[in-house]
Amino acid sequence: MIKTVNGGVCAAKGFTAGGVHCGIRKNRTKKDLAMIFSETPASCAAVYTTNLVKGAPLTVTKRHISDGRARAVICNSGNANTCNSDGIEIAEKMSELTAEALNIDPEDVVIASTGVIGQKLDIEPIANGIPKLVESLSENGGRDAAEAIMTTDTRVKESAVEFTIGGKTCRIGGMAKGSGMIHPNMATMLVFITTDAAISSEMLELALKNDISGTFNMVSIDGDTSTNDMVTVLANGEAGNPEITSDGEDFAEFMRALNSVTVCLCRMIAGDGEGATKMLECTVSGADDLDCARVVAKSVICSSLLKSAMFGSDANWGRVLCAIGYSGADVNVEKIDVSFKSAAGEITVCKNGAGVDFSEDEAKKILLESEIEILVGLNSGTESASAWGCDLTYDYVKINGDYRT
Amino acid sequence: MIKTVNGGVCAAKGFTAGGVHCGIRKNRTKKDLAMIFSETPASCAAVYTTNLVKGAPLTVTKRHISDGRARAVICNSGNANTCNSDGIEIAEKMSELTAEALNIDPEDVVIASTGVIGQKLDIEPIANGIPKLVESLSENGGRDAAEAIMTTDTRVKESAVEFTIGGKTCRIGGMAKGSGMIHPNMATMLVFITTDAAISSEMLELALKNDISGTFNMVSIDGDTSTNDMVTVLANGEAGNPEITSDGEDFAEFMRALNSVTVCLCRMIAGDGEGATKMLECTVSGADDLDCARVVAKSVICSSLLKSAMFGSDANWGRVLCAIGYSGADVNVEKIDVSFKSAAGEITVCKNGAGVDFSEDEAKKILLESEIEILVGLNSGTESASAWGCDLTYDYVKINGDYRT
Repeated sequence: MIKTVNGGVCAAKGFTAGGVHCGIRKNRTKKDLAMIFSETPASCAAVYTTNLVKGAPLTVTKRHISDGRARAVICNSGNANTCNSDGIEIAEKMSELTAEALNIDPEDVVIASTGVIGQKLDIEPIANGIPKLVESLSENGGRDAAEAIMTTDTRVKESAVEFTIGGKTCRIGGMAKGSGMIHPNMATMLVFITTDAAISSEMLELALKNDISGTFNMVSIDGDTSTNDMVTVLANGEAGNPEITSDGEDFAEFMRALNSVTVCLCRMIAGDGEGATKMLECTVSGADDLDCARVVAKSVICSSLLKSAMFGSDANWGRVLCAIGYSGADVNVEKIDVSFKSAAGEITVCKNGAGVDFSEDEAKKILLESEIEILVGLNSGTESASAWGCDLTYDYVKINGDYRT
Repeated sequence: MIKTVNGGVCAAKGFTAGGVHCGIRKNRTKKDLAMIFSETPASCAAVYTTNLVKGAPLTVTKRHISDGRARAVICNSGNANTCNSDGIEIAEKMSELTAEALNIDPEDVVIASTGVIGQKLDIEPIANGIPKLVESLSENGGRDAAEAIMTTDTRVKESAVEFTIGGKTCRIGGMAKGSGMIHPNMATMLVFITTDAAISSEMLELALKNDISGTFNMVSIDGDTSTNDMVTVLANGEAGNPEITSDGEDFAEFMRALNSVTVCLCRMIAGDGEGATKMLECTVSGADDLDCARVVAKSVICSSLLKSAMFGSDANWGRVLCAIGYSGADVNVEKIDVSFKSAAGEITVCKNGAGVDFSEDEAKKILLESEIEILVGLNSGTESASAWGCDLTYDYVKINGDYRT
């Protein structure tokens, strides 16, 4: 049984967190520096952006956690520390200052940054902020940390669940940021997950890699794969379950719990896409293979034309067909069914690749809701997949037409 | 010597054209049916969308011109005749009516449709419109035809040039429509080109296929590859030059003339993208191979974030680097230079993959122009390529949020 609980990254035993305003951002009411701390050593796994242009923090983090261990996360918003000649140096300095304040090894620190690319990151406010941040660490600090990693996000994104392994109650919780430049590929936006389940770093990495291909890699806000995407999981074993070191029922239960948290964060990220008024979920069923289902779902979610139609609550299903057609997936167009679904009902708009008569009024009512499901039936095989995105709005253009200034 | 001339699809000898309002569109001031006619038999080549969902007119056209010959083009706007159960039947009927009125073989008719997907196309207004359209055919009708194929286009797109082959003056001219759902792949929007040069259908097809990979396939408005993209060329040989039947200097000159027309139409299509206020041209130089240059240029042009920044005249060059990084091209990030250029000047914003100090005021002045060049130097090899697109604006969202209703 997997049960939803509160607490975000502090839901699991032995983790504290905090978030403060240190001065990277000019707005004093906006927190810009977050920390997560595990009181005991923890297994750590991470996945990173596939963008060739990589933020300096990713390079440093990758090296630090190469031994599969970490104890702390330091993350700033307001500046991505990317495409800067002194980027690595600043990222190393951030981890040294963090390690010093926490009395741990700098190699046990995960570093992340998000914000503008190509502007030098000043270490001064961070150096001043870290002592204050360490002092603020608490078991109730998950929300402060989640606030401090937000950029254009309008809502805090946290999720946590409770589950049982070997008779022991375990928890897994996470926080995420991600609003624009979201189109992850083999990695994603910034996501930090903690768990008190005992699991080896090898199995933790396997769990994470298996999970993201159907979760964070299926989210797209704007088709732009960021330079700083990263998902990390820390597992400190405080739950006392027999350590998961191989495949089996315990690992399967851990994967299910992890998936509950990641899917929840995916939906939150999609629904809070830059300028979004609606969360879109495309579920493709009846595919010949999983890859086909994923490619089709993601292509639909990425179509600027469909995203604009959803903004206007226009049941323009031809754009769904069009996006399936150019997805690259090998599908039989003449078997495709399409429906729109929301809290207001469900309506079929296309059967066997051609339009069917439907009530435009009914369709409008369904599409005026804030969470829309686009159901695509390929009627060929048995595989299915979902992808998450949002509508394209005036505000997306507004936010990104003038982001730096 | 290649010289620009007027006349569009009627610039070349022996071609007439026309455009009328027949009633597919409700707005009586908007022409919706276009025709091009060659007084004598002509070679014909075409390329089509790679979208698996294909408009019925493409299927019919492909069959009609399989012998490399055609004499007439009929094209309606307002309805794409795609995803309709009776689509093929209607497209065949359109060509029969055209052939009858022109006293030619139905197999010599090219059919095209553009507009909404998934709504049945009524043959009635087309049947009534064709006699009037045939009557209106004239050597000055290129502009009427170009107007009749427009959908959300705001400007007529025509281009023509004059050149010499074997001592004979030849002309080649074309018209295009394309404003949204523009992200061609191995084919493109609707483009009709005519020439009086004598060239075999095999060489005509080769010329077209070679040309589009560097022209129409390098244009993107919104990343959506249409179901009805098509480029056709008709060559009637009326210029009297020795027929081009193989590679050589004559073919090279024909290719150069064709390229003058197609690049001109690409720039027109990009500059008139749905909602666009600016035409963007990304030129990538110093690439190891042509494919790398093209992939990078197209990735930059397609970035929603960069497109939004250009709308806001914001020199956010980090988004150029980001788009290069996720393009999939194998580039050395630390060698990349980026400049912005327009009629107001040129400014370097990134050297060796990192930012350089530049005047924001100067950059703003450059980016306020209506045609912006984004110059990317990879500083590795000798190949270069250009791609064309436009900014992402409130109006793109507005136009596509309520296209059908």
